[in-house]
Amino acid sequence: MRKLKIYLLLFIIFIQILPERASAQDKAQEPKARYVFYFIGDGMGLAQINAAQAYKAALQGKIGIEALNMDKLNALGLVSTYAQNRYITCSAAAGTALATGQKTSINTIGMNADRTAPLNSIAWMAKKHGMKVGIITTVSLNHATPAAFYAHRPDRNDYYEIALQLTESNFDLFGLGGLKDAKGKKGDQPDAYDIARQKGYQIVKGREEFMKINKLDKKIIAINANIDPENAEVPVALDRGPEDMSLAEFVSKSIALLDNPNGFFMMVEGGQIDWACHNNDIATTIGEVLDFDQAIGHALDFAQKHPKETLIIVTADHETGGLTIGNALKHYDSDFGWIRHQKASQPALAKMFKEYKNRFCPANCSFDGIWPIIQEKTGLGKDIPLNEFDRTQLQMSFRASMLGQMPFPSEEANYLLFGGNDPLALMVTRIIAQKAGFGWTTWSHTGIPVPVRAQGPGQKSFEGFIDNKDIPHLILKAMGLPQNLN
Amino acid sequence: MRKLKIYLLLFIIFIQILPERASAQDKAQEPKARYVFYFIGDGMGLAQINAAQAYKAALQGKIGIEALNMDKLNALGLVSTYAQNRYITCSAAAGTALATGQKTSINTIGMNADRTAPLNSIAWMAKKHGMKVGIITTVSLNHATPAAFYAHRPDRNDYYEIALQLTESNFDLFGLGGLKDAKGKKGDQPDAYDIARQKGYQIVKGREEFMKINKLDKKIIAINANIDPENAEVPVALDRGPEDMSLAEFVSKSIALLDNPNGFFMMVEGGQIDWACHNNDIATTIGEVLDFDQAIGHALDFAQKHPKETLIIVTADHETGGLTIGNALKHYDSDFGWIRHQKASQPALAKMFKEYKNRFCPANCSFDGIWPIIQEKTGLGKDIPLNEFDRTQLQMSFRASMLGQMPFPSEEANYLLFGGNDPLALMVTRIIAQKAGFGWTTWSHTGIPVPVRAQGPGQKSFEGFIDNKDIPHLILKAMGLPQNLN
Repeated sequence: MRKLKIYLLLFIIFIQILPERASAQDKAQEPKARYVFYFIGDGMGLAQINAAQAYKAALQGKIGIEALNMDKLNALGLVSTYAQNRYITCSAAAGTALATGQKTSINTIGMNADRTAPLNSIAWMAKKHGMKVGIITTVSLNHATPAAFYAHRPDRNDYYEIALQLTESNFDLFGLGGLKDAKGKKGDQPDAYDIARQKGYQIVKGREEFMKINKLDKKIIAINANIDPENAEVPVALDRGPEDMSLAEFVSKSIALLDNPNGFFMMVEGGQIDWACHNNDIATTIGEVLDFDQAIGHALDFAQKHPKETLIIVTADHETGGLTIGNALKHYDSDFGWIRHQKASQPALAKMFKEYKNRFCPANCSFDGIWPIIQEKTGLGKDIPLNEFDRTQLQMSFRASMLGQMPFPSEEANYLLFGGNDPLALMVTRIIAQKAGFGWTTWSHTGIPVPVRAQGPGQKSFEGFIDNKDIPHLILKAMGLPQNLN
Repeated sequence: MRKLKIYLLLFIIFIQILPERASAQDKAQEPKARYVFYFIGDGMGLAQINAAQAYKAALQGKIGIEALNMDKLNALGLVSTYAQNRYITCSAAAGTALATGQKTSINTIGMNADRTAPLNSIAWMAKKHGMKVGIITTVSLNHATPAAFYAHRPDRNDYYEIALQLTESNFDLFGLGGLKDAKGKKGDQPDAYDIARQKGYQIVKGREEFMKINKLDKKIIAINANIDPENAEVPVALDRGPEDMSLAEFVSKSIALLDNPNGFFMMVEGGQIDWACHNNDIATTIGEVLDFDQAIGHALDFAQKHPKETLIIVTADHETGGLTIGNALKHYDSDFGWIRHQKASQPALAKMFKEYKNRFCPANCSFDGIWPIIQEKTGLGKDIPLNEFDRTQLQMSFRASMLGQMPFPSEEANYLLFGGNDPLALMVTRIIAQKAGFGWTTWSHTGIPVPVRAQGPGQKSFEGFIDNKDIPHLILKAMGLPQNLN
């Protein structure tokens, strides 16, 4: 009986220890994020996402919303975006918060608010721990959002200095835009591309060169065939030609290149959602959101192969334009599908109008002369019916664009109407927004919180109301890396 | 040894059964929601919430957001709001979805989309299962949102018929607004209040009478001392006098009355957030959101006493006005605190301006004559600095209000500027919004998804991207009641 008691006692002790051991094992086996995708839609607030959802549904003749790829990410939160010294943030301060986990002041890149100390990013931490790092954007590689992941400058406009810091980053892959001010603001500095080459980067241009690369045995800066000569950004989806790579195409190839047993960290920015919103250009905005969303699709495909080790985050730095899904002149109605008739972005339209002006104005220019171009490129007056008020507004804007006759004596009133945009191109896109049922309130950013979506290890931690500076810490935690970035 | 083996075997069997039994017990004991608060902010989108958060922070001299009571509810989701036959919904269709779990057509109350069959609400189901039911709103008791919980009518404008259905509801407590069209549209029908009395309702008016009631031994309709003669709504927070009950005060007393061992279901509508947003009146909007939020505070206090059995939901039927946290003329700046200088709602201002007009116009009226009233009631030109453009706009609106001189020849342009509002009162509140840093895009609703917050049993089920019609089913599930409402 004594033996029996001892056996039972041992057995009871063993049984009691078992759950704790199991739980400790669980903890040790809790998967870490080895493959991290950090998607940042610049200017992509809830309204921009919902516009794309509702537009997709409308194209199918449905009232409601049609799910995007980002809607497949189950965890959802809302993110406050304010900067340390201004409620309505900028991409530099917001990018720094999203990259380094600290709020900073307006225009500051990867430094603290009083610009006395550099702040390291989660991309830097990932690289330090042996992961491959890719920084991908549709705007220039030294623009605020990507810069926050590798640079430390008191002013986001120090493009040349930021480009030089890019060459020092040792990150594995940069693309799809180019380097703005590659030879400095005055064009008198040593070429940043040459410096990048000296630091070991291979510079490849265009689809063919990029697709030929099968291994990341050298660090790469891969640039689209066409980039804007001033801003080094790629064409928006609406203006893309056959030789231009889409963001989705670029991300797909980048995943193949960065994939390695030590894992990777990839930041993908939909950088021109913001610019389309600054222009209050709804068709281009929706086009860029859907384009960005296609890139997210490739991350989701990758995640299916490594579901326990892939973390995908989709968020934004701020909302731009004060977009809403309702327009006073449309009352309670909407015709979201009409957006599809716009065949060129507002800047592309402005360029066409300028060509017309240079050729015909003032002597031989008339509204009737430019009308066929408007009809063809936007569907206005053809696929989208116009009323007298619309025509009056178009003609008024024509006179402003072609003859410099601004409609109001007050500068503020003209600014309210046109912002800094070409009046006719702006009015064309404004009427499309109004007819479809969208409204805008500003040419700048707004301060409304933005959604964050997450899928993968630690996804639950992104739920609820969080702050932008929390996100990098939550990502590091999910990766099992130290959260102290300094 | 044989005995030992048998003992061990029995012990092992016992140990293996234990976890299953415990889990079954857990499940049986999983708490159900016995006390349910369903807060619906009519027109309260993310922008309205964020405006109140940022305003509260600004009052404390802080850049950022200050948490509201609703921010204490940990679970957060986003809710699509579209109606069965229109993307931008109305309060009738949205209220029906939120009450009955089925989408319906525009203007329909508690019926299916083709208006052939009634739909029962979760309040009806709660009552059926022996719970007490309270329906509380700051607008009339037969307005769309509250009506969706007890009425079945093809048209939300059938106020009299809806009032009669209220008297048949057998719900325990109604308040704080009154009955619109209590004697029918033409005033020639039997008084709905009298009919309510015949059906066993006690009608109490004003704070004193309501506060005297200590027990719900009779069904009650409790009405604020002052209600609007036409719309039967209570004064907004900004216009409230000392004899007016606040929504918070009313909810606090209602909790005490409805509290009983069988539990209760309480729908609380912040009904005039919507109307302030229709007017694009940001100060009144924020005032109403904060007032609504105070009522939520009382629900949170109650939940502390019954944390495992209290479910609190806070959501909205739709966004109104296309509010954004940014204004073109304010660029990237904001001065949210300036909102505090507005001392009367836009309708109250319009009333003052009308009194001035009736007394002095056209013979003796002048902008200088009305200017002291504007300064005193809004802070414009006193606490809030104005520029030349602001003054021009105010004078233009003065001429429209007082002399009927509309600024534009085009009806659409005037509608864009003023909606259907008193031009001067509208312009005053528009300039306040602009100076503070807010923008609006419509006089109607918008189609952007709205937040939902939840605390209590089943709170996790409200997370992520959901649809308005899902919410009643999730509430019923949390209550342990049948989800089939028909």
